[in-house]
Amino acid sequence: MDWEKRYARRAERMRASEIRELLKLLDQPDIISFAGGIPDPALFPASAFADAYRDVLGAETAGTALQYSVSEGYAPLRAWIVARMAEIGVPCGIDNILITSGSQQGLDYLGKLFLSPDDTALVTWPTYLGALQAFNSYEPRYDRLNPDGGNMTPAAYRDAAAAAGGSVKFAYLTPDFANPTGETIDRTQREGVLDLAEALDIPVIEDTAYLPLRYDGAAPPSILALDIARTGSIDASRTIFCGSFSKTLAPGLRLGWICAAEPLIRKLVLIKQASDLNTPTINQMVMHRVADAVYATQVPRLVAAYRAKRDAMLAALERHMPAGVSWTRPEGGMFVWVTLPEGFDGAALLARAVESARVAFVPGRAFFADGSGANTIRLNFSMPPVDRIDEGIARLAGVIRDSRP
Amino acid sequence: MDWEKRYARRAERMRASEIRELLKLLDQPDIISFAGGIPDPALFPASAFADAYRDVLGAETAGTALQYSVSEGYAPLRAWIVARMAEIGVPCGIDNILITSGSQQGLDYLGKLFLSPDDTALVTWPTYLGALQAFNSYEPRYDRLNPDGGNMTPAAYRDAAAAAGGSVKFAYLTPDFANPTGETIDRTQREGVLDLAEALDIPVIEDTAYLPLRYDGAAPPSILALDIARTGSIDASRTIFCGSFSKTLAPGLRLGWICAAEPLIRKLVLIKQASDLNTPTINQMVMHRVADAVYATQVPRLVAAYRAKRDAMLAALERHMPAGVSWTRPEGGMFVWVTLPEGFDGAALLARAVESARVAFVPGRAFFADGSGANTIRLNFSMPPVDRIDEGIARLAGVIRDSRP
Repeated sequence: MDWEKRYARRAERMRASEIRELLKLLDQPDIISFAGGIPDPALFPASAFADAYRDVLGAETAGTALQYSVSEGYAPLRAWIVARMAEIGVPCGIDNILITSGSQQGLDYLGKLFLSPDDTALVTWPTYLGALQAFNSYEPRYDRLNPDGGNMTPAAYRDAAAAAGGSVKFAYLTPDFANPTGETIDRTQREGVLDLAEALDIPVIEDTAYLPLRYDGAAPPSILALDIARTGSIDASRTIFCGSFSKTLAPGLRLGWICAAEPLIRKLVLIKQASDLNTPTINQMVMHRVADAVYATQVPRLVAAYRAKRDAMLAALERHMPAGVSWTRPEGGMFVWVTLPEGFDGAALLARAVESARVAFVPGRAFFADGSGANTIRLNFSMPPVDRIDEGIARLAGVIRDSRP
Repeated sequence: MDWEKRYARRAERMRASEIRELLKLLDQPDIISFAGGIPDPALFPASAFADAYRDVLGAETAGTALQYSVSEGYAPLRAWIVARMAEIGVPCGIDNILITSGSQQGLDYLGKLFLSPDDTALVTWPTYLGALQAFNSYEPRYDRLNPDGGNMTPAAYRDAAAAAGGSVKFAYLTPDFANPTGETIDRTQREGVLDLAEALDIPVIEDTAYLPLRYDGAAPPSILALDIARTGSIDASRTIFCGSFSKTLAPGLRLGWICAAEPLIRKLVLIKQASDLNTPTINQMVMHRVADAVYATQVPRLVAAYRAKRDAMLAALERHMPAGVSWTRPEGGMFVWVTLPEGFDGAALLARAVESARVAFVPGRAFFADGSGANTIRLNFSMPPVDRIDEGIARLAGVIRDSRP
């Protein structure tokens, strides 16, 4: 039917997400998968969740837990987040917090709020695939943010955006243990991002999904904390902090938050109302109880387990990878980013690796807004069993050795 | 800051939702509120939910329940919905079903898929406020759908849309016990909507949030069922059926679905991935168990309770309302729609009713895409206690009598 063809353009922009479909096929038991970017379910605090659902569904609170609720989110959970933000150097109040259905939803809402077709979003090369997918719905173009040097001048970014028919609307980045690279930018680089944002008068979207998962080294201040140090208060700041419970407590409840200036939060609350009324009430009440009960012990438990997996992966890469292959050494998070010699194609390598060596990963190209990065691949270390990592990397190294272009 | 001003236009379109803020203020204990459009929490099957969360968080399934999951939704819940759709005359398969975070999210996704700025959406006058809010994010204009006669010619709709700089993208309606009017359109009117949609080659969005709550009379076939009777199969149909668990089992889990042609569902799955990855896994697993266990007994229980409340409201209106006031007599759902004599203003009346009589309702104007309908108000009968309805209507009638313009 003709009406089906009319939405082709917008849907076309979303094709990158089909990579997820591919990855589902790869979760077969005989495959060692470094593909998914998901937490190890053996580490979920399942009994704390069971206790919390039981309590919340008791006679006193069941009616509230099963009912509609306010779009901004459950106040005690927002208050818990305020305390967590204070711990990382961000003084704020509950009116600076919107609960979202995962931080992915926060990215979608920010795209909806800021982007019109042909506007420009600044992102790193590579960047989180899910951010590109969320923003793509609003049909922007991308320009390259280089926190490690090499940014264009503000005027050059502005001119390029105007030539494309829009303006620069925001800068988006994951400063800590980025997906996909695992890399962290330092304090000077963070200040540089704020300098650029000030010059362009744009907000900065700081995606902190992996922030609590630090295995070594000292954490630099968050970009939002640095912004508040410049401007004096969160309500005067331009940084929009996206947080998540998915990597610390559990992703299955779909809970994250945005912490930002109150006028901005008020606009996002209207978007939330229009898009799904509220994040599930019961899950917010449960997450508040679980966070209160186990967050302080759960994070060190995850850090110990994932650090061992990261160390196993770095040791295996050192042991097995042929010359010419390089990789990042992340201080936290879930990913190692591998650069192969020029001429390699990650997608072709994946097909061969799955077929001949039963090992999987994500080809890097999908993470580049311009489709470059063919010779890169992303390896996840949070999900595979620690005692399978060496074997998986050995197999992958074998396929790379046999596939020299 | 300047960057905050740039999103003013889009946020401006969302202002209608501020009515929800107003309504929150009204939920004070001494007020008899006919304002909210929400189910009676005393009727939630809370113990079935408690059992299901306990079971799902058992050792065998906890890891799955707390993990990310596929964007299209939990397959056993989709299979349950397929069986429910068959009961109402819609043969389909699980690939025709997308799980959404409430049917509100379905409306948002359909707006995102179909609408560009200045496109036209056909809606009834009045229509569901939440649909206008969801669609407004995508900056359409509206034209009036008249299922009870008085539609323009297809060419006239097309010309008006073209003159506004876009095209007609869909027709949206709630055929059963509509929010806000409580009215149901008959089979002939449903066929008329399909005729118009065929002539314009547009999809029909059939919002069925209240469908299971029928208190008298026989249900006409759903528009999707009539469409399938014309076209031979759901995959050839143009009707997009939005369903909800919010009014039958509980809204707090935020669970609804879209049932439509498979090519359309595939596009919506991509939108879902980009917007929030998946509806909370645990809630879908729980809703499947609860639906399986209690849906068949829960719906008759709700019907009996809400029928008594509707009857109490209609009897009270008959008893207390002055001449010149008219109202609908809904066969189901949650709302009675009251038309006051010309010259009344629902918003002014609400302010007086709250202050002088401690009774609340929703002024009707917000439900009209063109801002008309000042002399209408919406009364909800699902939420107030049955033994307070007569007193509340008597108070309201008193305010109306004292407020003749």
